Amino acid sequence: MNFSISQLRDFAKQVFGKMNFSDEDALLSANFLTRADLRGVDSHGIARLRGYYNLFLNGRLNPKPVFKRHSRFPTLSTLDADQSIGFLSAYEAMNMSIRMARDTGVGIVAVKNSNHFGIAGQYALMAAEENMIGMAMTNASPLVAPTFSKDKMLGTNPIAIAIPSKISRPFVLDMATTTAANGKLEILQRKNSLAPEGWIQKKDGTLTSNPNELKEGGALRPLGSFPDLGSHKGYGLGAAVDILSGVLSGANFGPWVPPFVSFLPLAENLVGEGIGHFFVSFRVDGFMELDSFLNRMEAWMVAFRNASMIDNQAVLVPGDPEWLLEDERQLNGVYLLEAVIKDLNNLAMEIGIEPFSR
Amino acid sequence: MNFSISQLRDFAKQVFGKMNFSDEDALLSANFLTRADLRGVDSHGIARLRGYYNLFLNGRLNPKPVFKRHSRFPTLSTLDADQSIGFLSAYEAMNMSIRMARDTGVGIVAVKNSNHFGIAGQYALMAAEENMIGMAMTNASPLVAPTFSKDKMLGTNPIAIAIPSKISRPFVLDMATTTAANGKLEILQRKNSLAPEGWIQKKDGTLTSNPNELKEGGALRPLGSFPDLGSHKGYGLGAAVDILSGVLSGANFGPWVPPFVSFLPLAENLVGEGIGHFFVSFRVDGFMELDSFLNRMEAWMVAFRNASMIDNQAVLVPGDPEWLLEDERQLNGVYLLEAVIKDLNNLAMEIGIEPFSR
Repeated sequence: MNFSISQLRDFAKQVFGKMNFSDEDALLSANFLTRADLRGVDSHGIARLRGYYNLFLNGRLNPKPVFKRHSRFPTLSTLDADQSIGFLSAYEAMNMSIRMARDTGVGIVAVKNSNHFGIAGQYALMAAEENMIGMAMTNASPLVAPTFSKDKMLGTNPIAIAIPSKISRPFVLDMATTTAANGKLEILQRKNSLAPEGWIQKKDGTLTSNPNELKEGGALRPLGSFPDLGSHKGYGLGAAVDILSGVLSGANFGPWVPPFVSFLPLAENLVGEGIGHFFVSFRVDGFMELDSFLNRMEAWMVAFRNASMIDNQAVLVPGDPEWLLEDERQLNGVYLLEAVIKDLNNLAMEIGIEPFSR
Repeated sequence: MNFSISQLRDFAKQVFGKMNFSDEDALLSANFLTRADLRGVDSHGIARLRGYYNLFLNGRLNPKPVFKRHSRFPTLSTLDADQSIGFLSAYEAMNMSIRMARDTGVGIVAVKNSNHFGIAGQYALMAAEENMIGMAMTNASPLVAPTFSKDKMLGTNPIAIAIPSKISRPFVLDMATTTAANGKLEILQRKNSLAPEGWIQKKDGTLTSNPNELKEGGALRPLGSFPDLGSHKGYGLGAAVDILSGVLSGANFGPWVPPFVSFLPLAENLVGEGIGHFFVSFRVDGFMELDSFLNRMEAWMVAFRNASMIDNQAVLVPGDPEWLLEDERQLNGVYLLEAVIKDLNNLAMEIGIEPFSR
């Protein structure tokens, strides 16, 4: 069944309201949450609303956070998010970074004591909308094993980069540093389908195609999948994201990052506060005239979109698939699985708001 | 046969001298070139000396470059490298970026009109030696096909990140955004060995294990290798490196990046000058006390090195393998193939210096 984005957003706003968010914060959070549904990252959208609600119930998500900033330089800043939902702290931190870049050329903000922020690309995009280059990353619950290890030491730790162009909508790379984001695994688990070989390993480190092995002590593999195809590179990228987001900000890092699901306990001897994010904005007109850059970027995009195809499969620029989906879903709405609809209806009943769907 | 690093360095210095480099520039270039041999990236070391010499002969490498800077902000700068060898422009740009970071917290330098700079990690390391976080990247001759394309549109476009720690030597991620650097292919070509499936595609875009297909119109695959294992992510990373290094700096980008080998002609209708690099340095003490950061980073490294192993294969931190090799080669020297020794002896004869080896 299909639902309009505004219907998803209104429902999410009501739920955040019941979590004691201010009206403004509830609207912002609902916007950022459902942006994932709009852009086709279904696992990070409305389907996760219950997860955030459970974090609130367990006292791990503060609905009235008071952000604290620390800056020794006008270009660098740390934000203590006071256990905020990630949407609000990421929005605040990216705005800080953009303001700093407006004044000094570049702004970098590391966030600690936060929670999951949905899809990374939308924060990077905020800078591109100001004709800056934006980057956003975050660490996340440990699910990924380093090359040659059995242990879940890293999250799917996404990297997003957004770059403005003249005519085309921005270049947006928004990628988990694993072969596949955890959400894709969740979908396979729900459907009882197999995963491609190279996504998952079992508890003993051997390969498997069974996505349910993740719940039996298995782990995701880093991008590259196999040592001889460069899995140490995906591991290294995920590690860099963890260090910039977690070690540098004062958040937890590696295996200590708090799990998203509230039924899993926190790790012992935590090494920091909450989860961590990392944001960068910088001006392109510090390097060349803005208009020259935008024209060069457009030429780059045109050249790559026109590269010769294999089997008539379109050659895309990072971000193109999400922009296409956004247009289509703005028009036709978003398809939700029965299980998701039922879960949202149950949530509505529990907290005393109108059902999501009848 | 094994040779000491100082022997390689002295020989390279003499060759750069014959290319009319100043003594200081010849020594610097020899140092950076042979750092690749020291750290185990044999393809980027002394074996490439003849390649740089040929670029000089063809007038594509200026031995007496005059660098021109352009800065609108104290944090951002462009460097026109005046067709310098990449070692000198990268050294200059990274030093600029470190000085800017010392004053303002962060320095970003984009370089155009340059040539290949060897291994990226050594420039990122310069920042780590100052207790900063350093990043270095470069675009390179087109060899890599985007996902679903037959065309060589990108170089192996490496990303390097170096991060200081308390006791351990720095974390150094230094990775091509392909499954394997081109140098590894060159080694397989020389030995007539097969490559793992996923490294290379033929002219028509189908997979092959034959490394010689690269010379027959084939291409390298981005990290991830296959669409269902996330090759669009490796492509996206290589694309981001190309845009930051090439589009933003005013250098050539994508398929227009000049080839390293001087016998290949330049592309028509060039879109910029030379090849491009991108360097970032920023202070960690803009986020927390330096010593707290170094201790947290050490804890990160210890946790990852102690992760449980598959088949007793050590779990490494990015940079560990290169540090081990550096120690070993400092002690025992570097093994060079007969073909490389012969090539260096021929070069010595051509330019009238003492043979490399008798």
